[in-house]
Amino acid sequence: MRLRGRKGIRENLEAQPELIVLDPREYKGRWKERFGNDRPIYVELGMGKGQFISGMSVRYPDVNFIGMDMYDELIRRAGEKGKKAWAEKTGQNVEDVRPPNLNLALGNIEFIEEFFAPGEIERIYLNFSDPWPKAKHGRRRLTHPRFLNKYKQLLNEKGEIHFKTDSQTLFEFSLNAFAAVGLQMSDISLNLHRDGINENHVMTEYESKFHAQGMNIYRCEVKVGQAALRNYEEHKMDRF
Amino acid sequence: MRLRGRKGIRENLEAQPELIVLDPREYKGRWKERFGNDRPIYVELGMGKGQFISGMSVRYPDVNFIGMDMYDELIRRAGEKGKKAWAEKTGQNVEDVRPPNLNLALGNIEFIEEFFAPGEIERIYLNFSDPWPKAKHGRRRLTHPRFLNKYKQLLNEKGEIHFKTDSQTLFEFSLNAFAAVGLQMSDISLNLHRDGINENHVMTEYESKFHAQGMNIYRCEVKVGQAALRNYEEHKMDRF
Ligand SMILES: C[S@@+](CC[C@H](N)C(=O)[O-])C[C@H]1O[C@@H](n2cnc3c(N)ncnc32)[C@H](O)[C@@H]1O
Ligand SMILES: C[S@@+](CC[C@H](N)C(=O)[O-])C[C@H]1O[C@@H](n2cnc3c(N)ncnc32)[C@H](O)[C@@H]1O
Repeated sequence: MRLRGRKGIRENLEAQPELIVLDPREYKGRWKERFGNDRPIYVELGMGKGQFISGMSVRYPDVNFIGMDMYDELIRRAGEKGKKAWAEKTGQNVEDVRPPNLNLALGNIEFIEEFFAPGEIERIYLNFSDPWPKAKHGRRRLTHPRFLNKYKQLLNEKGEIHFKTDSQTLFEFSLNAFAAVGLQMSDISLNLHRDGINENHVMTEYESKFHAQGMNIYRCEVKVGQAALRNYEEHKMDRF
Repeated sequence: MRLRGRKGIRENLEAQPELIVLDPREYKGRWKERFGNDRPIYVELGMGKGQFISGMSVRYPDVNFIGMDMYDELIRRAGEKGKKAWAEKTGQNVEDVRPPNLNLALGNIEFIEEFFAPGEIERIYLNFSDPWPKAKHGRRRLTHPRFLNKYKQLLNEKGEIHFKTDSQTLFEFSLNAFAAVGLQMSDISLNLHRDGINENHVMTEYESKFHAQGMNIYRCEVKVGQAALRNYEEHKMDRF
Protein backbone atom coordinates (compact mmCIF):
# COMPACT_ATOMS: atom_id res chain seq x y z
CA MET A 1 0.00 0.00 0.00
CA ARG A 2 1.24 3.47 -0.86
CA LEU A 3 0.74 6.33 1.52
CA ARG A 4 1.82 8.80 -1.17
CA GLY A 5 3.69 10.93 1.33
CA ARG A 6 0.56 11.82 3.25
CA LYS A 7 0.24 11.11 6.92
CA GLY A 8 -2.80 9.97 8.66
CA ILE A 9 -4.72 8.52 5.74
CA ARG A 10 -5.03 5.23 7.54
CA GLU A 11 -6.32 6.87 10.71
CA ASN A 12 -8.78 8.89 8.67
CA LEU A 13 -10.09 5.75 6.96
CA GLU A 14 -10.24 3.74 10.18
CA ALA A 15 -12.40 6.45 11.71
CA GLN A 16 -15.17 5.79 9.13
CA PRO A 17 -15.92 2.08 9.46
CA GLU A 18 -19.52 2.42 8.19
CA LEU A 19 -18.33 3.91 4.89
CA ILE A 20 -14.85 2.47 4.42
CA VAL A 21 -13.86 -1.18 4.29
CA LEU A 22 -10.14 -1.66 4.76
CA ASP A 23 -10.28 -5.43 4.57
CA PRO A 24 -13.01 -6.58 2.20
CA ARG A 25 -12.18 -10.23 2.97
CA GLU A 26 -14.11 -9.73 6.20
CA TYR A 27 -17.38 -9.30 4.35
CA LYS A 28 -17.14 -12.05 1.77
CA GLY A 29 -20.64 -13.56 1.62
CA ARG A 30 -21.93 -10.98 4.13
CA TRP A 31 -22.23 -7.75 2.14
CA LYS A 32 -26.04 -7.73 2.24
CA GLU A 33 -25.85 -8.22 5.95
CA ARG A 34 -23.44 -5.31 6.18
CA PHE A 35 -25.75 -3.06 4.17
CA GLY A 36 -28.64 -4.31 6.29
CA ASN A 37 -30.95 -5.05 3.38
CA ASP A 38 -31.51 -7.36 0.43
CA ARG A 39 -30.93 -4.87 -2.36
CA PRO A 40 -28.72 -5.68 -5.34
CA ILE A 41 -25.02 -4.92 -5.10
CA TYR A 42 -23.24 -3.01 -7.87
CA VAL A 43 -19.45 -2.80 -7.68
CA GLU A 44 -17.13 -0.44 -9.54
CA LEU A 45 -13.72 -2.00 -9.97
CA GLY A 46 -11.03 0.68 -9.92
CA MET A 47 -13.30 3.57 -8.97
CA GLY A 48 -10.49 6.16 -8.74
CA LYS A 49 -11.60 9.40 -7.12
CA GLY A 50 -15.20 8.21 -6.95
CA GLN A 51 -17.17 10.69 -9.08
CA PHE A 52 -19.14 7.90 -10.77
CA ILE A 53 -19.87 5.71 -7.75
CA SER A 54 -20.94 8.65 -5.58
CA GLY A 55 -23.13 10.03 -8.37
CA MET A 56 -24.72 6.63 -8.85
CA SER A 57 -25.32 6.11 -5.14
CA VAL A 58 -27.40 9.29 -4.77
CA ARG A 59 -29.25 8.66 -8.01
CA TYR A 60 -30.13 5.03 -7.28
CA PRO A 61 -30.90 4.74 -3.56
CA ASP A 62 -32.41 1.27 -4.07
CA VAL A 63 -29.08 -0.20 -5.05
CA ASN A 64 -26.07 -0.84 -2.82
CA PHE A 65 -22.84 0.44 -4.32
CA ILE A 66 -19.29 -0.60 -3.56
CA GLY A 67 -16.35 1.27 -5.04
CA MET A 68 -13.11 -0.65 -4.98
CA ASP A 69 -9.58 0.57 -5.56
CA MET A 70 -6.14 -0.44 -4.40
CA TYR A 71 -4.94 3.00 -3.25
CA ASP A 72 -6.01 4.23 0.15
CA GLU A 73 -5.70 7.87 -0.89
CA LEU A 74 -8.31 7.22 -3.59
CA ILE A 75 -10.54 5.48 -1.07
CA ARG A 76 -10.29 8.59 1.12
CA ARG A 77 -11.12 10.94 -1.73
CA ALA A 78 -14.00 8.80 -2.96
CA GLY A 79 -15.33 8.76 0.61
CA GLU A 80 -15.27 12.57 0.68
CA LYS A 81 -17.09 12.70 -2.68
CA GLY A 82 -19.70 10.23 -1.50
CA LYS A 83 -20.37 12.19 1.69
CA LYS A 84 -20.54 15.46 -0.22
CA ALA A 85 -23.03 14.03 -2.71
CA TRP A 86 -25.24 12.68 0.08
CA ALA A 87 -24.96 15.95 2.04
CA GLU A 88 -26.23 17.82 -1.02
CA LYS A 89 -29.01 15.32 -1.53
CA THR A 90 -30.18 15.33 2.09
CA GLY A 91 -29.27 18.87 3.19
CA GLN A 92 -27.17 17.46 6.06
CA ASN A 93 -23.67 18.59 7.02
CA VAL A 94 -20.84 16.68 5.35
CA GLU A 95 -19.55 15.77 8.84
CA ASP A 96 -22.85 14.22 9.88
CA VAL A 97 -23.94 12.51 6.72
CA ARG A 98 -23.75 8.74 6.34
CA PRO A 99 -24.35 7.49 2.77
CA PRO A 100 -26.68 4.54 3.39
CA ASN A 101 -25.99 2.62 0.18
CA LEU A 102 -22.32 3.33 -0.46
CA ASN A 103 -19.14 1.60 0.65
CA LEU A 104 -15.57 2.20 -0.46
CA ALA A 105 -13.37 -0.85 -0.22
CA LEU A 106 -9.58 -1.09 -0.36
CA GLY A 107 -8.53 -4.11 -2.36
CA ASN A 108 -6.57 -5.45 -5.29
CA ILE A 109 -8.91 -6.82 -7.95
CA GLU A 110 -6.45 -9.65 -8.55
CA PHE A 111 -7.94 -11.16 -5.39
CA ILE A 112 -11.59 -10.31 -6.08
CA GLU A 113 -12.74 -13.87 -5.39
CA GLU A 114 -11.51 -13.43 -1.81
CA PHE A 115 -13.76 -10.37 -1.35
CA PHE A 116 -17.06 -11.65 -2.74
CA ALA A 117 -18.89 -14.95 -2.63
CA PRO A 118 -20.30 -16.56 -5.80
CA GLY A 119 -23.49 -14.77 -6.91
CA GLU A 120 -23.04 -11.93 -4.45
CA ILE A 121 -22.67 -9.18 -7.09
CA GLU A 122 -25.40 -8.15 -9.53
CA ARG A 123 -23.45 -5.69 -11.59
CA ILE A 124 -19.81 -4.81 -12.19
CA TYR A 125 -18.75 -1.45 -13.60
CA LEU A 126 -15.42 -1.21 -15.32
CA ASN A 127 -14.81 2.44 -16.13
CA PHE A 128 -11.69 3.55 -17.95
CA SER A 129 -9.67 0.63 -16.69
CA ASP A 130 -5.95 0.90 -17.22
CA PRO A 131 -5.33 -0.06 -20.89
CA TRP A 132 -1.92 -1.71 -20.37
CA PRO A 133 -1.04 -1.09 -24.01
CA LYS A 134 1.94 -3.43 -24.23
CA ALA A 135 0.99 -6.93 -25.37
CA LYS A 136 3.15 -8.50 -22.65
CA HIS A 137 0.99 -6.77 -20.03
CA GLY A 138 -2.26 -8.01 -21.59
CA ARG A 139 -2.95 -10.27 -18.63
CA ARG A 140 -3.23 -7.25 -16.35
CA ARG A 141 -6.15 -5.76 -18.28
CA LEU A 142 -9.29 -6.03 -16.14
CA THR A 143 -11.19 -7.43 -19.15
CA HIS A 144 -8.67 -10.21 -19.73
CA PRO A 145 -10.46 -13.59 -19.86
CA ARG A 146 -8.78 -14.61 -16.59
CA PHE A 147 -10.62 -11.73 -14.88
CA LEU A 148 -13.84 -12.29 -16.84
CA ASN A 149 -13.96 -15.86 -15.65
CA LYS A 150 -13.68 -14.65 -12.06
CA TYR A 151 -16.43 -12.06 -12.56
CA LYS A 152 -18.70 -14.74 -14.05
CA GLN A 153 -18.43 -16.70 -10.81
CA LEU A 154 -19.22 -13.73 -8.61
CA LEU A 155 -22.16 -12.32 -10.58
CA ASN A 156 -25.66 -13.56 -9.89
CA GLU A 157 -28.24 -14.78 -12.40
CA LYS A 158 -29.11 -11.22 -13.40
CA GLY A 159 -25.43 -10.36 -13.57
CA GLU A 160 -24.11 -7.75 -15.95
CA ILE A 161 -20.81 -6.02 -16.63
CA HIS A 162 -20.94 -2.42 -17.86
CA PHE A 163 -17.73 -1.30 -19.47
CA LYS A 164 -16.66 2.18 -20.65
CA THR A 165 -13.30 3.28 -21.98
CA ASP A 166 -11.61 5.87 -24.16
CA SER A 167 -9.02 3.36 -25.35
CA GLN A 168 -9.68 1.99 -28.83
CA THR A 169 -7.18 -0.83 -28.32
CA LEU A 170 -8.52 -1.80 -24.89
CA PHE A 171 -12.08 -1.78 -26.24
CA GLU A 172 -11.08 -3.95 -29.19
CA PHE A 173 -9.27 -6.35 -26.87
CA SER A 174 -12.25 -6.42 -24.53
CA LEU A 175 -14.87 -7.14 -27.21
CA ASN A 176 -12.75 -10.07 -28.37
CA ALA A 177 -12.36 -11.24 -24.78
CA PHE A 178 -16.11 -11.04 -24.05
CA ALA A 179 -16.80 -13.01 -27.24
CA ALA A 180 -14.11 -15.59 -26.49
CA VAL A 181 -15.43 -16.20 -22.99
CA GLY A 182 -18.97 -16.58 -24.33
CA LEU A 183 -20.46 -13.54 -22.65
CA GLN A 184 -23.59 -12.12 -24.28
CA MET A 185 -22.86 -8.56 -25.42
CA SER A 186 -25.38 -5.80 -25.97
CA ASP A 187 -25.59 -2.03 -26.24
CA ILE A 188 -22.20 -1.84 -27.89
CA SER A 189 -21.42 1.79 -28.63
CA LEU A 190 -18.42 3.04 -30.59
CA ASN A 191 -19.17 6.68 -29.80
CA LEU A 192 -21.20 6.92 -26.63
CA HIS A 193 -21.81 10.65 -26.71
CA ARG A 194 -22.41 10.85 -30.48
CA ASP A 195 -25.76 12.58 -29.94
CA GLY A 196 -24.67 14.61 -26.89
CA ILE A 197 -24.55 13.54 -23.28
CA ASN A 198 -27.72 11.90 -22.05
CA GLU A 199 -28.85 13.72 -18.91
CA ASN A 200 -29.29 10.45 -17.02
CA HIS A 201 -25.76 9.37 -17.78
CA VAL A 202 -23.39 9.51 -14.80
CA MET A 203 -19.90 10.49 -15.94
CA THR A 204 -16.66 9.29 -14.39
CA GLU A 205 -13.66 11.57 -13.82
CA TYR A 206 -11.81 10.14 -16.79
CA GLU A 207 -14.90 10.31 -18.94
CA SER A 208 -15.47 14.02 -18.19
CA LYS A 209 -11.85 14.77 -18.93
CA PHE A 210 -11.58 12.77 -22.15
CA HIS A 211 -14.96 13.85 -23.45
CA ALA A 212 -14.02 17.51 -22.89
CA GLN A 213 -10.92 16.84 -25.02
CA GLY A 214 -13.18 15.64 -27.83
CA MET A 215 -12.18 12.00 -27.43
CA ASN A 216 -14.35 9.10 -28.38
CA ILE A 217 -15.90 7.04 -25.58
CA TYR A 218 -16.65 3.36 -26.14
CA ARG A 219 -19.17 1.37 -24.13
CA CYS A 220 -20.56 -2.14 -23.96
CA GLU A 221 -22.69 -4.26 -21.65
CA VAL A 222 -22.36 -7.97 -21.17
CA LYS A 223 -24.68 -10.38 -19.48
CA VAL A 224 -23.95 -13.65 -17.75
CA GLY A 225 -26.06 -16.61 -16.70
CA GLN A 226 -29.82 -16.61 -17.12
CA ALA A 227 -29.81 -12.88 -17.88
CA ALA A 228 -27.91 -13.57 -21.08
CA LEU A 229 -30.39 -16.22 -22.20
CA ARG A 230 -33.49 -14.27 -21.29
CA ASN A 231 -32.10 -11.25 -22.94
CA TYR A 232 -31.27 -13.08 -26.10
CA GLU A 233 -34.59 -14.82 -26.39
CA GLU A 234 -37.04 -12.17 -25.31
CA HIS A 235 -35.70 -8.71 -25.57
CA LYS A 236 -32.80 -8.17 -27.83
CA MET A 237 -34.60 -8.35 -31.13
CA ASP A 238 -36.80 -5.42 -30.13
CA ARG A 239 -34.38 -2.79 -31.19
CA PHE A 240 -34.05 -4.10 -34.73
CA MET B 1 -32.58 -3.89 -63.55
CA ARG B 2 -30.81 -0.73 -64.63
CA LEU B 3 -28.99 -0.56 -67.91
CA ARG B 4 -27.44 2.77 -66.90
CA GLY B 5 -27.75 4.19 -70.39
CA ARG B 6 -25.36 1.61 -71.89
CA LYS B 7 -26.39 -0.68 -74.68
CA GLY B 8 -25.49 -4.24 -75.09
CA ILE B 9 -24.59 -5.06 -71.48
CA ARG B 10 -27.04 -7.93 -71.47
CA GLU B 11 -25.68 -9.33 -74.72
CA ASN B 12 -22.16 -9.03 -73.35
CA LEU B 13 -23.10 -10.90 -70.18
CA GLU B 14 -25.07 -13.57 -72.03
CA ALA B 15 -22.01 -14.28 -74.14
CA GLN B 16 -20.04 -15.42 -71.05
CA PRO B 17 -22.21 -18.13 -69.51
CA GLU B 18 -19.22 -19.89 -67.83
CA LEU B 19 -18.33 -16.75 -65.89
CA ILE B 20 -21.61 -14.89 -65.51
CA VAL B 21 -24.81 -16.16 -63.96
CA LEU B 22 -27.80 -14.02 -64.88
CA ASP B 23 -30.31 -16.12 -62.98
CA PRO B 24 -28.74 -17.61 -59.85
CA ARG B 25 -32.02 -19.38 -59.03
CA GLU B 26 -31.03 -21.92 -61.69
CA TYR B 27 -28.11 -23.13 -59.61
CA LYS B 28 -29.66 -23.33 -56.17
CA GLY B 29 -28.29 -26.54 -54.66
CA ARG B 30 -26.11 -27.13 -57.72
CA TRP B 31 -23.23 -24.67 -57.40
CA LYS B 32 -20.63 -27.37 -56.75
CA GLU B 33 -21.87 -29.21 -59.79
CA ARG B 34 -21.54 -25.99 -61.79
CA PHE B 35 -17.95 -25.47 -60.59
CA GLY B 36 -17.30 -29.14 -61.28
CA ASN B 37 -15.63 -29.85 -57.95
CA ASP B 38 -16.25 -30.19 -54.24
CA ARG B 39 -14.33 -27.14 -53.04
CA PRO B 40 -15.82 -24.72 -50.55
CA ILE B 41 -17.86 -21.80 -51.85
CA TYR B 42 -17.17 -18.25 -50.65
CA VAL B 43 -19.65 -15.56 -51.69
CA GLU B 44 -19.20 -11.80 -51.63
CA LEU B 45 -22.56 -10.07 -51.23
CA GLY B 46 -22.52 -6.72 -53.02
CA MET B 47 -19.14 -7.15 -54.72
CA GLY B 48 -19.32 -3.86 -56.66
CA LYS B 49 -16.60 -3.58 -59.30
CA GLY B 50 -15.01 -6.83 -58.18
CA GLN B 51 -11.50 -5.88 -57.05
CA PHE B 52 -11.75 -8.04 -53.94
CA ILE B 53 -13.40 -11.13 -55.41
CA SER B 54 -11.05 -11.23 -58.42
CA GLY B 55 -8.02 -10.74 -56.17
CA MET B 56 -9.21 -13.52 -53.89
CA SER B 57 -9.92 -15.91 -56.77
CA VAL B 58 -6.35 -15.76 -58.10
CA ARG B 59 -4.88 -15.94 -54.62
CA TYR B 60 -6.94 -18.90 -53.42
CA PRO B 61 -7.39 -21.28 -56.38
CA ASP B 62 -8.68 -24.03 -54.06
CA VAL B 63 -11.79 -22.05 -53.19
CA ASN B 64 -14.75 -21.32 -55.46
CA PHE B 65 -15.76 -17.67 -55.38
CA ILE B 66 -19.09 -16.10 -56.30
CA GLY B 67 -19.47 -12.34 -56.46
CA MET B 68 -23.06 -11.15 -56.30
CA ASP B 69 -24.49 -7.76 -57.07
CA MET B 70 -27.80 -6.42 -58.30
CA TYR B 71 -26.45 -4.22 -61.09
CA ASP B 72 -25.55 -5.82 -64.41
CA GLU B 73 -23.03 -3.11 -65.20
CA LEU B 74 -21.12 -4.06 -62.05
CA ILE B 75 -21.32 -7.74 -62.98
CA ARG B 76 -19.79 -6.84 -66.34
CA ARG B 77 -16.98 -4.82 -64.77
CA ALA B 78 -16.25 -7.47 -62.15
CA GLY B 79 -16.11 -10.03 -64.96
CA GLU B 80 -13.50 -7.92 -66.77
CA LYS B 81 -11.47 -7.61 -63.55
CA GLY B 82 -11.65 -11.33 -62.91
CA LYS B 83 -10.48 -12.16 -66.44
CA LYS B 84 -7.69 -9.60 -66.23
CA ALA B 85 -6.47 -11.01 -62.91
CA TRP B 86 -6.46 -14.57 -64.27
CA ALA B 87 -4.78 -13.44 -67.50
CA GLU B 88 -1.98 -11.91 -65.44
CA LYS B 89 -1.71 -15.01 -63.32
CA THR B 90 -1.63 -17.48 -66.23
CA GLY B 91 -0.03 -15.37 -68.97
CA GLN B 92 -3.03 -15.98 -71.25
CA ASN B 93 -4.84 -13.31 -73.30
CA VAL B 94 -7.76 -11.65 -71.55
CA GLU B 95 -10.02 -12.80 -74.41
CA ASP B 96 -9.06 -16.45 -73.97
CA VAL B 97 -8.85 -16.75 -70.21
CA ARG B 98 -11.54 -18.52 -68.22
CA PRO B 99 -11.27 -18.02 -64.45
CA PRO B 100 -11.84 -21.57 -63.19
CA ASN B 101 -12.99 -20.70 -59.66
CA LEU B 102 -14.90 -17.44 -60.15
CA ASN B 103 -18.52 -16.68 -60.96
CA LEU B 104 -20.31 -13.34 -61.00
CA ALA B 105 -24.00 -13.61 -60.26
CA LEU B 106 -26.72 -11.02 -60.81
CA GLY B 107 -29.14 -11.05 -57.92
CA ASN B 108 -30.81 -9.09 -55.19
CA ILE B 109 -29.60 -10.29 -51.78
CA GLU B 110 -33.15 -9.84 -50.48
CA PHE B 111 -33.84 -13.16 -52.23
CA ILE B 112 -30.62 -14.94 -51.29
CA GLU B 113 -32.47 -18.01 -50.04
CA GLU B 114 -33.73 -18.51 -53.59
CA PHE B 115 -30.15 -18.62 -54.91
CA PHE B 116 -28.50 -21.01 -52.48
CA ALA B 117 -29.56 -24.18 -50.69
CA PRO B 118 -29.07 -24.61 -46.93
CA GLY B 119 -25.42 -25.35 -46.13
CA GLU B 120 -24.24 -24.57 -49.66
CA ILE B 121 -22.02 -21.62 -48.67
CA GLU B 122 -18.93 -21.85 -46.45
CA ARG B 123 -18.12 -18.18 -46.18
CA ILE B 124 -19.88 -14.88 -46.79
CA TYR B 125 -17.95 -11.65 -47.31
CA LEU B 126 -19.73 -8.40 -46.59
CA ASN B 127 -17.42 -5.60 -47.68
CA PHE B 128 -18.40 -1.96 -47.23
CA SER B 129 -22.08 -2.75 -47.41
CA ASP B 130 -24.33 0.27 -47.84
CA PRO B 131 -24.67 1.81 -44.35
CA TRP B 132 -28.27 3.04 -44.73
CA PRO B 133 -27.68 5.67 -42.03
CA LYS B 134 -31.32 6.55 -41.37
CA ALA B 135 -32.89 4.45 -38.62
CA LYS B 136 -36.03 3.88 -40.69
CA HIS B 137 -33.88 2.14 -43.33
CA GLY B 138 -32.19 -0.12 -40.76
CA ARG B 139 -33.91 -3.20 -42.14
CA ARG B 140 -32.09 -2.74 -45.44
CA ARG B 141 -28.64 -3.10 -43.85
CA LEU B 142 -27.11 -6.40 -44.96
CA THR B 143 -26.18 -7.14 -41.33
CA HIS B 144 -29.73 -6.67 -40.05
CA PRO B 145 -30.84 -9.73 -38.07
CA ARG B 146 -33.37 -10.59 -40.78
CA PHE B 147 -30.45 -11.06 -43.21
CA LEU B 148 -28.23 -12.74 -40.60
CA ASN B 149 -30.90 -15.34 -39.98
CA LYS B 150 -30.98 -16.10 -43.70
CA TYR B 151 -27.20 -16.37 -43.88
CA LYS B 152 -27.20 -18.76 -40.92
CA GLN B 153 -29.42 -21.13 -42.89
CA LEU B 154 -27.26 -21.02 -46.00
CA LEU B 155 -23.86 -21.40 -44.32
CA ASN B 156 -22.47 -24.86 -43.65
CA GLU B 157 -21.03 -26.20 -40.39
CA LYS B 158 -17.74 -24.38 -40.97
CA GLY B 159 -19.64 -21.27 -41.94
CA GLU B 160 -18.22 -17.81 -41.33
CA ILE B 161 -19.13 -14.24 -42.19
CA HIS B 162 -16.27 -11.78 -42.73
CA PHE B 163 -17.33 -8.19 -42.50
CA LYS B 164 -15.40 -4.99 -43.28
CA THR B 165 -16.67 -1.43 -43.29
CA ASP B 166 -15.56 2.16 -42.94
CA SER B 167 -18.84 3.13 -41.28
CA GLN B 168 -18.64 3.49 -37.50
CA THR B 169 -22.41 3.44 -37.17
CA LEU B 170 -22.88 0.41 -39.44
CA PHE B 171 -20.15 -1.44 -37.55
CA GLU B 172 -21.75 -0.61 -34.22
CA PHE B 173 -25.15 -1.72 -35.51
CA SER B 174 -23.64 -4.91 -36.90
CA LEU B 175 -21.80 -5.92 -33.72
CA ASN B 176 -25.06 -5.54 -31.82
CA ALA B 177 -26.89 -7.54 -34.48
CA PHE B 178 -24.31 -10.36 -34.44
CA ALA B 179 -24.58 -10.50 -30.65
CA ALA B 180 -28.38 -10.38 -30.67
CA VAL B 181 -28.62 -13.23 -33.17
CA GLY B 182 -26.19 -15.31 -31.11
CA LEU B 183 -23.38 -15.43 -33.65
CA GLN B 184 -19.91 -16.09 -32.24
CA MET B 185 -17.69 -13.10 -33.00
CA SER B 186 -13.91 -13.10 -33.26
CA ASP B 187 -11.08 -11.04 -34.71
CA ILE B 188 -12.92 -7.82 -34.04
CA SER B 189 -10.77 -4.92 -35.20
CA LEU B 190 -11.55 -1.25 -34.67
CA ASN B 191 -8.66 -0.12 -36.87
CA LEU B 192 -7.75 -2.85 -39.30
CA HIS B 193 -4.70 -1.18 -40.80
CA ARG B 194 -3.37 0.22 -37.50
CA ASP B 195 0.01 -1.40 -38.07
CA GLY B 196 0.05 -0.90 -41.87
CA ILE B 197 -1.52 -3.05 -44.55
CA ASN B 198 -0.73 -6.73 -44.23
CA GLU B 199 0.66 -7.94 -47.56
CA ASN B 200 -1.71 -10.91 -47.61
CA HIS B 201 -4.73 -8.70 -47.18
CA VAL B 202 -6.88 -8.30 -50.30
CA MET B 203 -8.35 -4.80 -50.46
CA THR B 204 -11.73 -3.90 -51.92
CA GLU B 205 -12.30 -0.79 -54.07
CA TYR B 206 -13.95 1.06 -51.22
CA GLU B 207 -11.27 -0.04 -48.80
CA SER B 208 -8.44 1.28 -51.02
CA LYS B 209 -10.26 4.57 -51.45
CA PHE B 210 -11.18 5.10 -47.79
CA HIS B 211 -7.84 3.92 -46.48
CA ALA B 212 -6.03 6.36 -48.83
CA GLN B 213 -8.20 9.11 -47.29
CA GLY B 214 -6.92 8.13 -43.85
CA MET B 215 -10.22 6.65 -42.74
CA ASN B 216 -10.55 3.94 -40.17
CA ILE B 217 -11.51 0.46 -41.36
CA TYR B 218 -13.46 -1.86 -39.03
CA ARG B 219 -13.53 -5.62 -39.37
CA CYS B 220 -15.07 -8.62 -37.65
CA GLU B 221 -15.57 -12.32 -38.25
CA VAL B 222 -18.50 -14.36 -37.05
CA LYS B 223 -18.94 -18.07 -36.95
CA VAL B 224 -22.09 -20.15 -37.13
CA GLY B 225 -22.95 -23.74 -36.27
CA GLN B 226 -20.29 -26.15 -35.15
CA ALA B 227 -17.53 -23.76 -36.18
CA ALA B 228 -18.63 -21.37 -33.48
CA LEU B 229 -18.56 -24.05 -30.79
CA ARG B 230 -15.27 -25.58 -31.86
CA ASN B 231 -13.76 -22.20 -32.09
CA TYR B 232 -14.94 -21.23 -28.68
CA GLU B 233 -13.81 -24.39 -26.98
CA GLU B 234 -10.51 -25.10 -28.64
CA HIS B 235 -8.97 -22.09 -30.24
CA LYS B 236 -10.10 -18.76 -29.04
CA MET B 237 -8.28 -18.63 -25.76
CA ASP B 238 -4.96 -19.01 -27.55
CA ARG B 239 -4.56 -15.35 -28.28
CA PHE B 240 -4.98 -14.28 -24.70
C1 LIG C 1 -7.64 4.94 -15.08
S1 LIG C 1 -8.33 4.93 -13.47
C2 LIG C 1 -10.06 5.14 -13.74
C3 LIG C 1 -10.78 5.69 -12.54
C4 LIG C 1 -12.31 5.83 -12.67
N1 LIG C 1 -12.96 4.53 -12.84
C5 LIG C 1 -12.70 6.78 -13.77
O1 LIG C 1 -13.28 6.32 -14.77
O2 LIG C 1 -12.48 7.99 -13.65
C6 LIG C 1 -8.15 3.22 -13.02
C7 LIG C 1 -8.26 2.97 -11.55
O3 LIG C 1 -8.22 1.56 -11.36
C8 LIG C 1 -7.45 1.28 -10.21
N2 LIG C 1 -6.92 -0.07 -10.36
C9 LIG C 1 -6.18 -0.53 -11.38
N3 LIG C 1 -5.86 -1.82 -11.19
C10 LIG C 1 -6.40 -2.18 -10.01
C11 LIG C 1 -6.40 -3.38 -9.25
N4 LIG C 1 -5.77 -4.48 -9.69
N5 LIG C 1 -7.07 -3.39 -8.09
C12 LIG C 1 -7.72 -2.29 -7.64
N6 LIG C 1 -7.74 -1.14 -8.31
C13 LIG C 1 -7.09 -1.07 -9.47
C14 LIG C 1 -6.38 2.37 -10.21
O4 LIG C 1 -5.86 2.56 -8.91
C15 LIG C 1 -7.16 3.58 -10.72
O5 LIG C 1 -7.74 4.31 -9.66
C1 LIG D 1 -20.78 0.34 -51.21
S1 LIG D 1 -20.66 -0.86 -52.45
C2 LIG D 1 -19.27 -1.85 -51.96
C3 LIG D 1 -18.64 -2.60 -53.10
C4 LIG D 1 -17.47 -3.53 -52.75
N1 LIG D 1 -17.90 -4.63 -51.85
C5 LIG D 1 -16.31 -2.79 -52.13
O1 LIG D 1 -16.04 -2.99 -50.94
O2 LIG D 1 -15.64 -2.01 -52.84
C6 LIG D 1 -22.07 -1.87 -52.08
C7 LIG D 1 -22.46 -2.78 -53.22
O3 LIG D 1 -23.52 -3.62 -52.77
C8 LIG D 1 -24.49 -3.75 -53.80
N2 LIG D 1 -25.78 -4.06 -53.15
C9 LIG D 1 -26.39 -3.34 -52.19
N3 LIG D 1 -27.54 -3.91 -51.84
C10 LIG D 1 -27.67 -5.03 -52.59
C11 LIG D 1 -28.67 -6.04 -52.70
N4 LIG D 1 -29.77 -6.01 -51.95
N5 LIG D 1 -28.46 -7.04 -53.56
C12 LIG D 1 -27.33 -7.07 -54.33
N6 LIG D 1 -26.37 -6.15 -54.27
C13 LIG D 1 -26.53 -5.13 -53.42
C14 LIG D 1 -24.46 -2.41 -54.50
O4 LIG D 1 -24.96 -2.51 -55.81
C15 LIG D 1 -22.98 -2.06 -54.45
O5 LIG D 1 -22.30 -2.53 -55.59
